[in-house]
Amino acid sequence: MTRLPTLLLASLAAALAATPATAQRIHPPTPAEIVAAAPASEWVEIAATDLLVMDLAPDAGGKPRRVVIQLVPPPFASGWVGNIRKLVAAHWWDGLSVNRVQDNYVAQWGDPDGEDKVKARPLPRGLMRMTAADYTVPRLLESPQQTVRRRGQSWWTRDPFAPDTAVVAGWPTARDAQRQWPVHCYGSVGVGRDLAPDTGSGAELYAVIGHAPRALDRVIAVVGRVIEGIAHLSALSRGTGDLGFYETAAERTPIVSIRLASELPDPPRFETLSSDSDSFAKLLEARANRSDAFFTAPAGGIDICASAAPVRRVPTSS
Amino acid sequence: MTRLPTLLLASLAAALAATPATAQRIHPPTPAEIVAAAPASEWVEIAATDLLVMDLAPDAGGKPRRVVIQLVPPPFASGWVGNIRKLVAAHWWDGLSVNRVQDNYVAQWGDPDGEDKVKARPLPRGLMRMTAADYTVPRLLESPQQTVRRRGQSWWTRDPFAPDTAVVAGWPTARDAQRQWPVHCYGSVGVGRDLAPDTGSGAELYAVIGHAPRALDRVIAVVGRVIEGIAHLSALSRGTGDLGFYETAAERTPIVSIRLASELPDPPRFETLSSDSDSFAKLLEARANRSDAFFTAPAGGIDICASAAPVRRVPTSS
Repeated sequence: MTRLPTLLLASLAAALAATPATAQRIHPPTPAEIVAAAPASEWVEIAATDLLVMDLAPDAGGKPRRVVIQLVPPPFASGWVGNIRKLVAAHWWDGLSVNRVQDNYVAQWGDPDGEDKVKARPLPRGLMRMTAADYTVPRLLESPQQTVRRRGQSWWTRDPFAPDTAVVAGWPTARDAQRQWPVHCYGSVGVGRDLAPDTGSGAELYAVIGHAPRALDRVIAVVGRVIEGIAHLSALSRGTGDLGFYETAAERTPIVSIRLASELPDPPRFETLSSDSDSFAKLLEARANRSDAFFTAPAGGIDICASAAPVRRVPTSS
Repeated sequence: MTRLPTLLLASLAAALAATPATAQRIHPPTPAEIVAAAPASEWVEIAATDLLVMDLAPDAGGKPRRVVIQLVPPPFASGWVGNIRKLVAAHWWDGLSVNRVQDNYVAQWGDPDGEDKVKARPLPRGLMRMTAADYTVPRLLESPQQTVRRRGQSWWTRDPFAPDTAVVAGWPTARDAQRQWPVHCYGSVGVGRDLAPDTGSGAELYAVIGHAPRALDRVIAVVGRVIEGIAHLSALSRGTGDLGFYETAAERTPIVSIRLASELPDPPRFETLSSDSDSFAKLLEARANRSDAFFTAPAGGIDICASAAPVRRVPTSS
């Protein structure tokens, strides 16, 4: 999730990559340096029960393709997340496929025959039907410490799509005086639906593979974010049918399985930098005011999507 | 360039695609309907001398891969655009390659040996050396009509990265009291450079294939935008080296040629909806307040990247 926002020529990139972290610094710390220096106490492990592990069929060269998704925490989208837990427990997605890839928009997976009454795979019992009201939650309280931090960051209120934004437990959200909701950013995972807002169960999912489609906020449920392997979705061939659906079954990418990490014998582990930590506050300040050598004109602001908390692997034995 | 921001299930998508445009409408016109209804007088053809046509080597299935780039108009980045005109006149890029693809960031092309003093392809004579001051231009005047239109669109000033934004001749730009500059959006084409701001000639170019990297505004020169074929760059395999550079020559995608459309025997032709037109004003209003059936909670705003003018093909005999 860390970003490398330089556009360097190849030899310079190699030289920089080879520069030891202890080299004399002639600038305030970069975002990457702040993340690297954050003490262990500021990192929080993501529960294995909150991680979806999607294994796609290997690529043409036989390489495995694994996509890891963190589910959004309560109170957001809790009905849909509950449905997704039922679907994954039933191993419902196994053998289905990625059916749609639309450039600068989404990669979408689920049952390609989902609307065929004969061929559709039956859904597990007990899925909840959500309503339009469930796309947002009552505005959340924030701690006095958070409020003080936000006061120094005027850019947080300069969002074109909502009166105000805030990071909640590492997640970019927007809000008005009454309601709050997670926003659509690159890598966000949401629930495909039909025209009526109560028609998405969570069986049909998509990941954003382009510029943040913020017009979808409060219109579709954000239920997670890809924290590893997004390129296995974003670099897929674009579908040539309407809305990027593939026109032939052969073009679809098979899903071998989707599991909770907690079901796996050797689960990948991840941790996230606490958005209540001092390092996170420094990180946002640095992202908004890049002052390392390449950035000759700091922006003075960041958008809410660039305010997501960094995620990194926890080393495991495998 | 038109967007299809729905996440429909397959059968519904097919049904909607089959709906005749004359079907009874139960909502205000959608962005797509406004664009389709715009009279011919509101469309402006893009000069063939302002179009770069990049032909990549055919894909694994033998299909041609053509990327069309519109050069940014004066007064923006005019020194770099002048250099690019010299480079394309010299057929300088022919036989070079796409050397870097970094997920949610850029696809970059040029001379893979550009920094090897022996192997580097010599640059044409007479390229200009630009400075940090050239990344912006003095703030542009706008017509009284434009000012009146902007007054009703409060979201235009809610940009997290700059005091104000404005669309100029169809191009998304930002500005402060003194200066104005084109911004980085999905599909924007810019000039790769080394650490010093005067080191980019225009020979090393990139296209944005992810969320708008607005921190690059005023830091790197935006010289164009991809108006057709972006997926030939955005769906390429990501490089596994530092910053997404490919680690082996075999992974690079060869560039057969880059030409001005005006050099081609049968050039593609494009036109853009005038950003001074009534339809364009209606389009922005509709994009900010989606009220067709799927959009149950209109955002009330758009970001500057969603304010780019639509581009479409002009039918040709071929």
